[in-house]
Amino acid sequence: MFDFDLHATEGAARAGTLHTPHGPVQTPVFMPVGTLGAVKHVSPGELVDLGAQMVLANTYHLYLRPGHELVRELGGLHEFMRWEGPTLTDSGGFQVFSLAGIRRIDDDGVEFQSHIDGSTHRFTPESVMEIERILGADVIMAFDECPPGGSDRATAEKANERTLRWLDRCRVRFGQLVAEQPEGPVQTLAPVIQGNVFDDLRREHARRVLSAGDWKILAVGGLSVGEAKPDMWRVLEVLDPELPRDRPRYLMGVGYPEDLLEAIGRGIDMFDCVAATRNARHGTAWTFANGQVNLKARRFARDTDPIDPGCDCYACLNFDRAYLRHLVAAGEHFAHRLVSIHNLRFLVRLAEQSRARILEGDFTRWSADWLERYRSAGV
Amino acid sequence: MFDFDLHATEGAARAGTLHTPHGPVQTPVFMPVGTLGAVKHVSPGELVDLGAQMVLANTYHLYLRPGHELVRELGGLHEFMRWEGPTLTDSGGFQVFSLAGIRRIDDDGVEFQSHIDGSTHRFTPESVMEIERILGADVIMAFDECPPGGSDRATAEKANERTLRWLDRCRVRFGQLVAEQPEGPVQTLAPVIQGNVFDDLRREHARRVLSAGDWKILAVGGLSVGEAKPDMWRVLEVLDPELPRDRPRYLMGVGYPEDLLEAIGRGIDMFDCVAATRNARHGTAWTFANGQVNLKARRFARDTDPIDPGCDCYACLNFDRAYLRHLVAAGEHFAHRLVSIHNLRFLVRLAEQSRARILEGDFTRWSADWLERYRSAGV
Repeated sequence: MFDFDLHATEGAARAGTLHTPHGPVQTPVFMPVGTLGAVKHVSPGELVDLGAQMVLANTYHLYLRPGHELVRELGGLHEFMRWEGPTLTDSGGFQVFSLAGIRRIDDDGVEFQSHIDGSTHRFTPESVMEIERILGADVIMAFDECPPGGSDRATAEKANERTLRWLDRCRVRFGQLVAEQPEGPVQTLAPVIQGNVFDDLRREHARRVLSAGDWKILAVGGLSVGEAKPDMWRVLEVLDPELPRDRPRYLMGVGYPEDLLEAIGRGIDMFDCVAATRNARHGTAWTFANGQVNLKARRFARDTDPIDPGCDCYACLNFDRAYLRHLVAAGEHFAHRLVSIHNLRFLVRLAEQSRARILEGDFTRWSADWLERYRSAGV
Repeated sequence: MFDFDLHATEGAARAGTLHTPHGPVQTPVFMPVGTLGAVKHVSPGELVDLGAQMVLANTYHLYLRPGHELVRELGGLHEFMRWEGPTLTDSGGFQVFSLAGIRRIDDDGVEFQSHIDGSTHRFTPESVMEIERILGADVIMAFDECPPGGSDRATAEKANERTLRWLDRCRVRFGQLVAEQPEGPVQTLAPVIQGNVFDDLRREHARRVLSAGDWKILAVGGLSVGEAKPDMWRVLEVLDPELPRDRPRYLMGVGYPEDLLEAIGRGIDMFDCVAATRNARHGTAWTFANGQVNLKARRFARDTDPIDPGCDCYACLNFDRAYLRHLVAAGEHFAHRLVSIHNLRFLVRLAEQSRARILEGDFTRWSADWLERYRSAGV
C-alpha cells in the first residue's frame, strides 16, 4: 500500500500513480482543502465531478471542533465528510505556528490558544500522531516546526534539528499506535522537509529525513511562506536530485496555477492550497484566456462568455460572466460556490493536463507556452 | 394561457393546475424566492431536484442591481437565472414600503433611496409595469400600497383606495406595453388584495379588485406583517367565498410549514417566503419528527440521524445531524446550502402532500393530525 508507480518523466517532471487504501491517485495531483471536514461551498459529489481525487483536512481545526474523538465516533474522517476517496491530514503544525496567536514552543511540543475560545492546548509529536490516527486519513503528516518566512539561518537550523527529533518521536508513536490497533485504518506517515530558503540546510535536512525512516511520501514544507518565488524554485531544484524517484513529493500549501506548473517542472507530484476557494469568495477566478480576473470588474457586466471559455466545469458550462459579476457584486453565496468549483477545476485540470503532457513527453514546451500566455493575459 | 384547472376541493382546500408559458404548476405550490435572480445557496438543478415548480424574483432588487435593462439584454429573467420553469416577480412595493429606509409616498408613486448606495429612485405603477415587462417573468404583480402591520382602519382604507387607483394604472400601462410589443413575453398581471385585518375592508377590496379587470391570478397581500395568526386565518376565511373558484389565489410572503397547511385549508393555492433559506443560514431546520430545530444545539453533536428521517432531500439522504451541527457551529457555508435545500424541500413536499390529500379527499384530517404532531414535537 502507498506504492508509487512512476510512469514517465520529462526532465524533472513526473507522471505516476500513488496507490492508497481508498483508491489510486494519478499524479501530478491537486488536492482540494476541506479544512473543517468540508471543502468550502462544494459538495462531495461536485468534487468528484470536477475531478478531485484526494482531499485534505486540517488536524488543528478538527481537533478543536468537533474534536477528533467525535470524528472517530462518527465513522472516521472519510465517513464523517462523505468522501470515499483518498484523504490526507496535515499535522496542525503550520496552524499552531502561524494561526494561533499565543503559543509557547519548547522541545517537548507547542502550547497554544484556541482561535475559537482562547482555551489552552498542547500539541506534541505523540499527541498529534494520536489525533491523526484517530481522524483516520490515509496519509498523515509528521508534526514539524515551520519557522516563519524570512527567518535567519540560525532559526532555520534550529527548526530543522527540532523537526528531526520530532519526526523520530512521530515515527515511534505512530508505530506503537498501529501495533496497538492493527485493525485500524491503513495509514502512512509522511515527513516534512524544512530548511527555509537555505540550499545547504534543505539538502542536509532531506538527507537526514530520508535516513530517519522508510517513508512512502515525502513532503516539502516551509515554502510559499513569503519568500521570493525564485527562492522557492531554487529550493525545489536543490531537492529534486536528493529525493528518491519512486516516492511522490508533496509541496505543502502550494498553490496558484503558475506555481503548479513551475513546481511540476521541478519534480513535485502533489499540491494543496486554500487559494482556490478563498479567492472565490472575493470573486477572483483563474482563466486560461485572461489570467487571474476579478469577476466584480465592470467590464464583465455585459459579458456573456463563461468564466473561462474552454473550461468544462459546472459553472462554465451553465453560467456567464455577466450573471456571475452580478452575483459577486451582490455578495450572493451561490457565486462563491460557482467560482470555487471553477477555480478548483482549473487547478485539477492543470494537473491532469500536465500529466498528459508528461506522458507524451511534451510537458516542458507546453508548460512554457502556457505560463507565457497566462502571465501576459493577466495584464 | 394562465388558465387554472381545478381538479378537486375539500372544504375550502383546492388542488389544481395553473398553465403558464413555461409549463404547468400543480397547486398548492410553494415558490422558492430568488431575490437577486438566484435562490440563495441553491442551484437551478437542485431546485428541480427538490421539486420546485415556480420561482420568484424581486423587482426592487433586480431594478437596483444589475438593472432590469441588463437582465433583458442577457435574455430576460429565465435565461438570466438559468431557470426554465415558470417565474413570478413581485412589484417592489413591499420592499420600498418596508425595506427602503427613506421614502416619500404620494398618489403618483413612491420616492425611495437605494439600500445599496442611497441614490434616489421613483416607482410609479407605470414604471413598475415597464420594469416587470422588461424582466419578463410569467406572472407580474401590480404595484400596491402595503401599509405596515398594526395600521389603523383609516390608514388601511386609504391604502386600499390608492391600491385600486394604482391597479387601474398598472392595468392600462401593462396593456399598452403588450400592445406595443406583442412579440414580447406572454405575461399576466396579478392584482393584490389589501385591507389589513379589517374584514369588511378586505371584502370590499376583493370585490372592487375583481371588478377592475379580468385577472387570471389573485394575490392576497398585507398579511404576515406582524398581525396575530388568528387574524390572518380569519381574513382568509372572509376572502374565500369572495374569490372566484377558477382562479388561483396567492398568499404573498407566507410562510412557515404550519402556515402553509392553515392557509391551504382556507383556500390558498400559491405561497412564497424567504424563511426557508434565511433560517437555514442560522442553522434552523424544519422537521416532521421534531418540529423546528436549531442544528447548532449540543444535543445533535452525536446524532447520526438525518435532519428529518423520512425526508427525501439531498441533505437528508447524504448527511447526518452530527456533521451538520459541526458545520453550522463552525459557520461553514456548505451547511447553509444543505439546510436551505432541506427547508425548501420541506415546504415543497408539504404542498405536494397537501395536493395528494386533497385529491384523495383526506386533507382536513391529515392536516389537523400533521399540525398537532408538528406543534407538539417542537416543544
